[in-house]
Amino acid sequence: MLGNFIYYNPTKLYFGTEVETNLVEALKNFGPKVLLTYGGGSIKTNGVYDTVVKALKESGKEVIELSGVMPNPTLEKLNEGIKVARENDVDLILAVGGGSTVDYSKGVAAAAWYDGDAWENFWVKGNEPASDQKVIPVGSVLTLAGTGSEMNGGSVITDEPNKLKLGKVFGERLIPKFAILNPEYTFSLPQNQMVAGIFDIMSHLMEQYFSGDDDSTTDYMIEGLMRSVVASSRVAVKDPRNYEARSNIMWCATWALNTLLKMGKKGDWMVHMIAHAIGAYTHATHGMALSAISGAYYRFILKEDQHRLARFAKVVWEIPAEGKTEEELAKAGVAALEDWIKEIGAASNVTGLGVTEAMLEGIADSTILGGGYKKLTREDVIQILKDSFLD
Amino acid sequence: MLGNFIYYNPTKLYFGTEVETNLVEALKNFGPKVLLTYGGGSIKTNGVYDTVVKALKESGKEVIELSGVMPNPTLEKLNEGIKVARENDVDLILAVGGGSTVDYSKGVAAAAWYDGDAWENFWVKGNEPASDQKVIPVGSVLTLAGTGSEMNGGSVITDEPNKLKLGKVFGERLIPKFAILNPEYTFSLPQNQMVAGIFDIMSHLMEQYFSGDDDSTTDYMIEGLMRSVVASSRVAVKDPRNYEARSNIMWCATWALNTLLKMGKKGDWMVHMIAHAIGAYTHATHGMALSAISGAYYRFILKEDQHRLARFAKVVWEIPAEGKTEEELAKAGVAALEDWIKEIGAASNVTGLGVTEAMLEGIADSTILGGGYKKLTREDVIQILKDSFLD
Repeated sequence: MLGNFIYYNPTKLYFGTEVETNLVEALKNFGPKVLLTYGGGSIKTNGVYDTVVKALKESGKEVIELSGVMPNPTLEKLNEGIKVARENDVDLILAVGGGSTVDYSKGVAAAAWYDGDAWENFWVKGNEPASDQKVIPVGSVLTLAGTGSEMNGGSVITDEPNKLKLGKVFGERLIPKFAILNPEYTFSLPQNQMVAGIFDIMSHLMEQYFSGDDDSTTDYMIEGLMRSVVASSRVAVKDPRNYEARSNIMWCATWALNTLLKMGKKGDWMVHMIAHAIGAYTHATHGMALSAISGAYYRFILKEDQHRLARFAKVVWEIPAEGKTEEELAKAGVAALEDWIKEIGAASNVTGLGVTEAMLEGIADSTILGGGYKKLTREDVIQILKDSFLD
Repeated sequence: MLGNFIYYNPTKLYFGTEVETNLVEALKNFGPKVLLTYGGGSIKTNGVYDTVVKALKESGKEVIELSGVMPNPTLEKLNEGIKVARENDVDLILAVGGGSTVDYSKGVAAAAWYDGDAWENFWVKGNEPASDQKVIPVGSVLTLAGTGSEMNGGSVITDEPNKLKLGKVFGERLIPKFAILNPEYTFSLPQNQMVAGIFDIMSHLMEQYFSGDDDSTTDYMIEGLMRSVVASSRVAVKDPRNYEARSNIMWCATWALNTLLKMGKKGDWMVHMIAHAIGAYTHATHGMALSAISGAYYRFILKEDQHRLARFAKVVWEIPAEGKTEEELAKAGVAALEDWIKEIGAASNVTGLGVTEAMLEGIADSTILGGGYKKLTREDVIQILKDSFLD
């Protein structure tokens, strides 16, 4: 049942191929100094950088560039961004890239004008910026679909020396003001990054779906989104330049994690928690860490909610219920998920990600325990990881 | 395929049972003069009025009341509202009621500060308020779920003498600033109004779903919402005070018509166009006019998109496809819809609404022709109406 909640999500989404026009329009609402953040430079080879810079010039903005934002952005890099943003007193942070760049930019936006240890205050203690603390507006031009970071207030940052990857959900002040979503910008991604993004979306949906057996509109919407992700993924892995499939994937990504689906209901999030810990140890791509453990995880919780897993099998994977016990149907649902992981080329085990027996204790220690479904113990996490090794 | 679009919907939604607290919080953002609009006074007997007035007093607002907003609000009533809003220079219009009251309030908000013939400019010509024209912010406390008016910029007004019911979609400036959605406030509705609201939701979903045979995430989301409406309606008609069912219905209503589902895709809307014309002739409840003609309409367009109707049958009504031709499956989908209309007690023919043979020509003349599916002719409309009479 939907509990009481407040939903407010004012990100303006410009979806489609008119990036330059959209960006000029969006930039009108902000002051002259723009901090342009991006990653490793792929945007310079695929034309995205040129389009963005052209729109910034046309808008008369003064641009300060900050490149080299890595997947799993680090605390060290965050501190660099804080320094640059503050010294230049920027009016907007424009993130060009995927979820890491957007997450990073929101982190800088929240932390730049905080006087004190931002990591400790925001990520470790989980505080939101005080109402009298300035936060810098963030906008994005997305080049990778998956995290949903373009329309939520979340920011995942990794303290590398301490192997701590922490995701913080800031309040509505950190939700990006705008996002430009051009499916064509995702065409040139390497296949494995596209697939990782697809599984990230699926995992966001599943972690909000597996959270109880009540009757909630949200779960029906999630089923619709899961069905769409599966259908489009099957087209996109064979034909990555298929606009229809890539646009559906991009749109699913935004709605899978833009706060709508968490309204008034519980979530699980243990697959994400374990995957974050794996990421802190191995630099595995986030989506691949998720897919590598999902089979084992859902088999592990099968006894906790066989009923919901059976519904998942029937509605999402269209497995006929006739002639099957609920348990058989539930198991068939997990098997269908595992088959699909292999079909699209996502990681199906942690061995390939570089996880070794020697890391298990450490990963379990780094996993933030909890879970809406079953409160996992440290030993449960080790068991799930062991079940995720290549047989 | 999703076409280019801009999505921006900043209505803050307070969902649940904490109405007074929510309203005090929401009112903080507006000036002291509040125009309180409502209908026939049922809010005075069910306690809603008292709660709202308490919150307004607690917030120190000066309240101007405007009651008597009717279902299918009239141009005459609109002009009264314009006069009151303008004379009092109100800072906010707070609509307490269902879609009619919210639509009406948005109409007043758009028109109050327009110098000239507002009906002609906004509804007949379809202009949006000029950027330098003042529009009054609108908020709502919803007591009836169905229209989705609480989170869109639409406003349907009826010119009674000329039998013209026109729905205008204003731009983002007229989207309400906030809406308070308490499912319990819908408990005391008469059953037929609840059912009319449920069918209105279903029709919004169907009119956006039946618009082509491409593969779009939106259609999967619509299927999810349709499945939820059907499931919750079956609970609510037997147990109208079931919070879970009524909250799902309320949430479905908002998402069925808050602009999300129309992004980048065509819609049909011919059932609404014909129902509006019926409404101008008979004062039939909007949702009942929709349900009365839907069976005939979807049978009429069956040959236009058998494939999508077959998908509707399979996914929404869970009709097994095995052993059926696509045409048989499509027909079974329409039959399932008609069965459900009867099951929940919605109108299944126009005879019961007071439509007579003598009105057919007039209703057809008042119907705004078009349609994303099939461009209906005047004769098509008459045929659909004839097919909607009680056999």
